Parts: sequence; structure tokens; C-alpha cells
Amino acid sequence: MRRLLMAGPDFSLAAVDPPSTPGFDGGKKEGAAALAAGADVLSSLQEKLFAESRAGREIAVLLVLQGMDTSGKGGILRHVVGLVDPQGVQHHAFKAPTEEEQHHDFLWRVRRRLPEPGVIGVFDRSHYEDVLIHRVRGLSAPDEVEKRYPAIRSFEEEIATSGTRVLKVMLHISKDEQKARLAERLERKDKYWKYSPGDVDERAYWEQYQEAYEAVVERTSTPDAPWYVVPADRKWYARLAVQQLLTATLEDMQLSWPRATFDVEAEKRRLAAS
Amino acid sequence: MRRLLMAGPDFSLAAVDPPSTPGFDGGKKEGAAALAAGADVLSSLQEKLFAESRAGREIAVLLVLQGMDTSGKGGILRHVVGLVDPQGVQHHAFKAPTEEEQHHDFLWRVRRRLPEPGVIGVFDRSHYEDVLIHRVRGLSAPDEVEKRYPAIRSFEEEIATSGTRVLKVMLHISKDEQKARLAERLERKDKYWKYSPGDVDERAYWEQYQEAYEAVVERTSTPDAPWYVVPADRKWYARLAVQQLLTATLEDMQLSWPRATFDVEAEKRRLAAS
Repeated sequence: MRRLLMAGPDFSLAAVDPPSTPGFDGGKKEGAAALAAGADVLSSLQEKLFAESRAGREIAVLLVLQGMDTSGKGGILRHVVGLVDPQGVQHHAFKAPTEEEQHHDFLWRVRRRLPEPGVIGVFDRSHYEDVLIHRVRGLSAPDEVEKRYPAIRSFEEEIATSGTRVLKVMLHISKDEQKARLAERLERKDKYWKYSPGDVDERAYWEQYQEAYEAVVERTSTPDAPWYVVPADRKWYARLAVQQLLTATLEDMQLSWPRATFDVEAEKRRLAAS
Repeated sequence: MRRLLMAGPDFSLAAVDPPSTPGFDGGKKEGAAALAAGADVLSSLQEKLFAESRAGREIAVLLVLQGMDTSGKGGILRHVVGLVDPQGVQHHAFKAPTEEEQHHDFLWRVRRRLPEPGVIGVFDRSHYEDVLIHRVRGLSAPDEVEKRYPAIRSFEEEIATSGTRVLKVMLHISKDEQKARLAERLERKDKYWKYSPGDVDERAYWEQYQEAYEAVVERTSTPDAPWYVVPADRKWYARLAVQQLLTATLEDMQLSWPRATFDVEAEKRRLAAS
């Protein structure tokens, strides 16, 4: 699945079909079962990551989640990352920058939220907003936006070099699926709070956002920090895919349980006498 | 259950029996079933809390978890708080203070971790360490420790006044149960990393810790921030008890789904046309 989802050098967003399920033959029911079955593996890997960091290895994982409104970023957090021990997770949802944040370079607030050793950090939106909405809605000048792509590449290289694996996922939904998900929020009184009239305004820029995403994937996919574009019209598939990507990322780290730094038998005797 | 667990004015820690299960008649199996059954209720309340904060109410919940090593604080985080949406939770484990933290008042680092509106904040250890280990192991002078009790009362009153409900839980285990839990860590290679020889050293101060906990409960239980002392030799009971305490705390807040701030029918038409 990982190889199928990784964006290659001749990436085209239009070639990714949002309702498709690359690398998985089953349907919703089989997908949910596979997700449940994979939870323990991921959970155990996360605990090893944490254990190794306690033994002094400076390692972490950063999962960057990007996608249009309603693409399911929150669901990934809840149904994929939410199945591992919360002590091993640090997540942050990046909103419109505060006044303080605006006074700094665009990477400043992101740096402050990088995961500590042993932890899976999750960014719900990220520094990529600074080359997505900023480009589409002209929040920054075009030449300023232009400078950010290489700045992001350097930044992520620095993170990877420091021992943090960077996993970047774009959840790719179709415009029609977004319409259906927004409509649901207007049908239920307990969902009104999730709806904002601005969501419909943004839909007028759909094509420009697709172009901006394509530029992001083309220009910031590096060996250290590749992009994975996950078809996301089927929530169950997107969740399973991100679980598998996270699992594969952790498996690559060759984690193992740290050896005891004390004499186990001597400690058993001390404990028994205490 | 809440009434039984709340520490009253004539509180005595010795009167709380660690293997008991106040307010619950069933055993482990029934307890696990009750915990699973309660997850959706708590989850829905948390979502309402979050929704109301988005609509402008400045409300939050702070769960303070204290207890001896191995008392199960991490298990509460994972199996109780871990069942609600991670986006609605901010947790922090307070360790020995860093050099920067030591340069400030003992409440400084705690203030910085208070939950944002809409969120359930969880402290795994807290400012109470400054009147527990500091008292028992003499990390601060006795008159300095003495001043901290009223400082804590004022601090928590301030938090409550600002709209954050404060729920303080002491997980109360027996010295024998701690021995059994530490012994388990010495039996399994995948648990060695959780063991530290210092854990046995601390056991020599068990009685002093009990006295320090009793002083904490006596001197910092207030109407705004009461202490609940939860018997914790049975993990399943402690989890169920904390779930019920959290649920009751949220129910007290009289949460409801915010009304739409837009014309629902007009938005349906705009969305359909988009």
C-alpha cells in the first residue's frame, strides 16, 4: 500500500481517484476489521518508540495531515492515532495564526510544536497552509509564497536529521463528497457547530486549491519527507491507509525493547525486602 | 459513587480500603462492561463541551491525577480519557522540574498547562508534588512547603472562577499492591524500561507519603476543588470511578448543543448551488 500511495516524481493529483482504495481489495467491513486488527501492532510499536527514547535515543515521528475541509483529519486523529496510548501522542491543530505568531517567521509556531523524543506528533494542518490558503487566497505575496517551498524542504530535512521521521499525508476527497459531508452538518442540530458559512465560500476556489496541493506535493516531496496522497472519499479506507503508513514508518525505525540498566535479580531481592 | 468518594471534613486516609469498590456491587467483568457502556456518554459530553466553547463559552475541565508510583495514572489516561476524542483532551505529565522551571514559582509551569476552553485537561502529577515529595524528601524547607497549601487553594479558586471545573483524584493503592506491580516489571523484558531502582528506595518512605497525602486532602479540599480518593488496588474499579466522576462533572455544567448562528435553510441552498 505504501508504495502505491507515495507521490512519485511525475505526480498528478488528477490521477488519484478519491473513492478508490489502492492496495486493498475488501470493502468497508473488511477495512474496519483490518483497522481493528492493526491497532495492537501500532500500539506496541509506539510503546517501543517511547521506551527507546527513555533509554536515550532521540527519536520521534511527525505525522502531518493536510486536506480540504471535511476530508477526515479529525477522524484520523480519533480512529487511528486515538488507538495508541495518549501518553505517546502530541497533537496540535493549527488555526489561523494569532497576532503573536504573525510577528514571527511562518515556521516559528510549527517548530514549537515538534514532538518530543519518543512521541508521535500529529499536525492537523501545518506549515503547508502557508503555501496553500496563502497562495490561493493571496494572504501572502506570490514571491513570498515562492520562497517558502525551499524553506519547508530545509526545515523538514533538519527535522529528519535530528531523528524525527516525517510522514506527510494528504487526504484527497472529491468536491461532491465534500458537499455531502457539509450537507450532513446542516441536517443535524448536534452538528451545526461544525458548520461555517465560510466553508461554502471556499468551495468556489476548489480548482485553485487542487493546483496548490499539486504544487506542494511536487515541490516538497523529498526522500526524507515524502508525500502520501490518500484517497479519502471512503473514510474507512483513509483510516486504514494512514494506520498502515504509520506502522510501516515505525517498523523502519528498527525499534527494540531497551535492555535493563540494572541487575534484575538484585532488584527482585531488594523489592521483596521492601 | 461520587458522594462516597469525596473526601469529607474529617477525612482519614487509613479509613479508605485500597481493594474496596465503593458504590459498585459487581466484579471485574461487570466493571469493564460498565466502563465500555459509559464511554459514549462521556464522549458525547466532551463534544458538547467543545461545541459550547466554539460558541464562545469559556469553559473547560481539569482532571488532576495523583497517586503513588504504579497507582494507575497512565491507565486512567489510556482507558478512560483515551475513549474521548483526542482533539478534546490536553494531557501533561509533570516530571522533576527543569532548570528553567526551577527559576520560577512552583505554580508557573502548571499555569502554562491549564486546558484551553472546550478541553478536558489532564495532569499526570501536578503542583501537588510540591507538597508531597518536597515535604517527604525535604526538597523544600518546611516553612516553604507550609506556604504552598494556601497558595494552591487560591490558585484553584482562581481556575474555578475562570470557568474551569477542577476535579482532583487521588488513586489510593496499598503498599503490597505496589510491590506486586513493580515485581511484574521485573518479570518481563518489555517492562524493564518502566522500572527504576529508585522506585524501591521510595518505598522506605511509604508512611510519610501517606501522611503527606492526608495533609493534602485535608488542607486543599474546597467546595470549588474537592478531592476524591479512589481505591485503586483494582484497576477496573479505579477506571470506572474516574469515568463516573468525569461524567458527573460534565453533567453539572448543563451543556447543550449551540444553536446555529446562520440561516440553516439559506445555507442548504447555497451549498447545493456550490
